[in-house]
Amino acid sequence: MSKRTAFFLSDQTGVTAETLGHSLLTQFDAQEIRQVTLPFIDSEDKARAAVSKINKAGADEALRPIVFSTLVQPEFRDIIRQANGLYLDIFDVFLEPLEAELQQLSTHESGRAHGMSDINAYMKRIEATNFALANDDGGISRNYEMADVILVGVSRSGKTPTCLYLALQYGVYAANYPLTEEEFEAGLLPDFLIQQKHKLFGLTIAPERLKHIRKERRPLGRYSSAQQVRYELRESEKIFKKYGIPSVDTTEFSIEEIASRILDSTGVDRRVRP
Amino acid sequence: MSKRTAFFLSDQTGVTAETLGHSLLTQFDAQEIRQVTLPFIDSEDKARAAVSKINKAGADEALRPIVFSTLVQPEFRDIIRQANGLYLDIFDVFLEPLEAELQQLSTHESGRAHGMSDINAYMKRIEATNFALANDDGGISRNYEMADVILVGVSRSGKTPTCLYLALQYGVYAANYPLTEEEFEAGLLPDFLIQQKHKLFGLTIAPERLKHIRKERRPLGRYSSAQQVRYELRESEKIFKKYGIPSVDTTEFSIEEIASRILDSTGVDRRVRP
Repeated sequence: MSKRTAFFLSDQTGVTAETLGHSLLTQFDAQEIRQVTLPFIDSEDKARAAVSKINKAGADEALRPIVFSTLVQPEFRDIIRQANGLYLDIFDVFLEPLEAELQQLSTHESGRAHGMSDINAYMKRIEATNFALANDDGGISRNYEMADVILVGVSRSGKTPTCLYLALQYGVYAANYPLTEEEFEAGLLPDFLIQQKHKLFGLTIAPERLKHIRKERRPLGRYSSAQQVRYELRESEKIFKKYGIPSVDTTEFSIEEIASRILDSTGVDRRVRP
Repeated sequence: MSKRTAFFLSDQTGVTAETLGHSLLTQFDAQEIRQVTLPFIDSEDKARAAVSKINKAGADEALRPIVFSTLVQPEFRDIIRQANGLYLDIFDVFLEPLEAELQQLSTHESGRAHGMSDINAYMKRIEATNFALANDDGGISRNYEMADVILVGVSRSGKTPTCLYLALQYGVYAANYPLTEEEFEAGLLPDFLIQQKHKLFGLTIAPERLKHIRKERRPLGRYSSAQQVRYELRESEKIFKKYGIPSVDTTEFSIEEIASRILDSTGVDRRVRP
């Protein structure tokens, strides 16, 4: 099958166009689609340069590119529309019904989404990230009174990236604590965690998957052996059960999904919306 | 002005619906809109529960809620459509033209975006996150040969969250190195950075803003004084100029914007697309 290119065009970061385009394209199997983001299109020159790139890709591939656009300003949109591609534009289709519903005209100003519209949001995300770093892997601060949620699970079950994602994306204060031999031998959690029991959330994972992930880190030794991995997961699940800790199996999930499921299950509020 | 609620509905995380909705809503000033995400709507019961929440919000607020939906399965979409809200659905408007263009019917299967469609993508993001952590703040690894980009700048200019965002979102290997008295007094970068000069990217920030951010961390002392902040920024900008290091002023930017501008300016490829 020949290749085709999808372009994500934006006068800002391109995050919205990428997210939208990705959601739609994943509905089509077996299409080999090259993805190109063209962000910060904030001048007529840049808009015309984007048109050239789209037309060149179409000519090279003999297949019309797909163009996901979130450009706001009418003069740049008009230029892009001249490219030979399938032009899909969220503002084209959704602004009008929104204007009618809200009884207000939209501003057509760019730089509003993902922008520094709110300095407080930036600070909250930074502070939450610092919190996650200081409270990663049971470490340094153990500032658990301030935490919104405390993830527990064995090494490499996904705790650190999930905490960082919760912080960066949502400004949520997420700590994490690794379950190790110490907890497994006693069959108990340490007191400082039991005091915060309502904040605990467990991560688990399929043994095969965990073995694979651990082998990337340390190919040899007990750490990544099938036996050790099974033992640790079994014991960690016993602890979740003993204390009634809700948990999620991360095996089939992306970081976004793990984070969303934690927020959904715990009811912890987003402090910031991306 | 009375409040109105926007709902972000998804059979998955809700990230796409949130991103789309946020981009559109920021086009309307002065509207006070409460935002509620209802993720993982994967059964008729959950779809009906969502309808109840939408109708309740509409009744409480006497304003019809706005519903951004990325539900894929027709049976759940039909239920949601019965809610009394302004229903905006990306699949409604964009799937048909995409099907025509790609000459293929869409699968209408959920769980495809932000899903574990690609175990390699997950691993790459995790590995990039580990790299960012090990190479944060000039620390531990200094594994700069492996880096895609090395951010340099004064303390609190936004290096750490940007590196983590680049890793989590795009799987990019981003290290960072703090510029301090050591560099300022010599007016030079250390040799191990000069060897990687083509990977260096500078972050700068307005003095007032930096002072504000530093005061959150340490309210007293030289670290957050106006004089020190101005001195460090002036010297760091001299170093960027001396070595011809491209840079971005982070003052007005969100973390997404800083990350996108770095990728756009350096040409570093996304290893993963979210």
